[in-house]
Amino acid sequence: MDQISYGQYSLVYNALSFVLAAMGAATIFLFLSRSQVSPKYKAAVTVSGIVTLIAAYHYFRIFNSWDAAYSVANGVVTATGRPFNDAYRYMDWLLTVPLLVTELILVMRLPGNEGSKKASRLALLAAIMVLLGYPGEISHVASTRWLWWCLSMIPFLIIQFELFVGLKSSIAAQPENARGLVSAARYITVVTWLFYPIVFILPMIGMTGASAEVGVQVGYSIADVLAKAAFGVFIYTIALRKSESEGYAEPVLRTAVAR
Amino acid sequence: MDQISYGQYSLVYNALSFVLAAMGAATIFLFLSRSQVSPKYKAAVTVSGIVTLIAAYHYFRIFNSWDAAYSVANGVVTATGRPFNDAYRYMDWLLTVPLLVTELILVMRLPGNEGSKKASRLALLAAIMVLLGYPGEISHVASTRWLWWCLSMIPFLIIQFELFVGLKSSIAAQPENARGLVSAARYITVVTWLFYPIVFILPMIGMTGASAEVGVQVGYSIADVLAKAAFGVFIYTIALRKSESEGYAEPVLRTAVAR
Repeated sequence: MDQISYGQYSLVYNALSFVLAAMGAATIFLFLSRSQVSPKYKAAVTVSGIVTLIAAYHYFRIFNSWDAAYSVANGVVTATGRPFNDAYRYMDWLLTVPLLVTELILVMRLPGNEGSKKASRLALLAAIMVLLGYPGEISHVASTRWLWWCLSMIPFLIIQFELFVGLKSSIAAQPENARGLVSAARYITVVTWLFYPIVFILPMIGMTGASAEVGVQVGYSIADVLAKAAFGVFIYTIALRKSESEGYAEPVLRTAVAR
Repeated sequence: MDQISYGQYSLVYNALSFVLAAMGAATIFLFLSRSQVSPKYKAAVTVSGIVTLIAAYHYFRIFNSWDAAYSVANGVVTATGRPFNDAYRYMDWLLTVPLLVTELILVMRLPGNEGSKKASRLALLAAIMVLLGYPGEISHVASTRWLWWCLSMIPFLIIQFELFVGLKSSIAAQPENARGLVSAARYITVVTWLFYPIVFILPMIGMTGASAEVGVQVGYSIADVLAKAAFGVFIYTIALRKSESEGYAEPVLRTAVAR
């Protein structure tokens, strides 16, 4: 990689620290807020918190790897020769992306075993999508990157289609106060997921060396905060609204009212 | 930066450690005390604890960065050449300031979806305010600092106006035993937030070199303790009073009384 400036180095450093803080905060928030939703939606909120917890772990590792890969003295950044390990991201996505699909389907509560069937199929496709992206990500040859990008886009598009079109009919079955939010969650998934294939092609469309590396790291950081932490809080909000519409209140209060 | 004395170095070192301790303590206090408030106010107390948790993380980082930036031997402080990373503060504020606005609005429980609309708008303004301050903070040119300070003051004043004047009418709707506290929370927000733009201009109004650096670090430390830890405990007190006025008691106690 060519010479990285202190500004570029700092931008990635601070972005990684920011995402670590955001993922940790979202995890604690989601775990504490579990008590406020009906037992029917607790699994969706738990999974949302598990996703941000796994991401917090990986961002801790990525941050430390970035920190170890460079030394800074008097404003000059020097590569230490220790590798910056980007594979953490793929290890993270292999666990979290199938879970992200699952949390959306869990909070929708599809009838019968339709939900678990759909979640299993989409989770498997999500894992395949991540695995197909990795050989491209570690390659510096543009044609190799495009090949794996195209292959990875096949499960990507199937998942997006199933979430967006396939779940549309289930929206009408949602309680009125949550319908808009559930529909918005589908749009948020489509938009935040689109970041990933776009960031992936940055090195293939003219960005080179340190700029490409910085673009990829900051781009994935933004995508992860939106697709995991912000999305998780969104899923919790849906779970809360649906719990309220079903007359659920924390058992504590129920006991008090009954007396 | 010019030569920093051991006294100046220690003042910042101890101030950072103090804030780390205060934020950590406030976090545990708020998380433990969640059980004492009615479910309606749990989100406000949870968010207050999340704010101090995020701040504790960043003060841990800032403290370590300060520690690494200097070495001390026989009372003489020498710069190590490793950068003191001040961007942690802005990463922190980008997450916590929108949440601070949210916790105040959550504890007020505005009718219908007025609260979530107001919280979203003010949180967005708060994030813009922090982002506009950063280019000025990292500049050593007074005119550049003033430019971004002025730009950042626009969302600052809008937020302050909305909290102070816009929420005034909602005070009357608060239960009597909490009305004074909710009103005071608005004053506390205005006063503690004023620290930030004042500390920001210290290097522009005559403080230079090490004195300016020390003034900024200690000033922001005081502001953060008041605006986050003290404010969070204040929000909890309001939540507790409002829970009491609505006849809420922890279920355990109620069962014991009923027998």
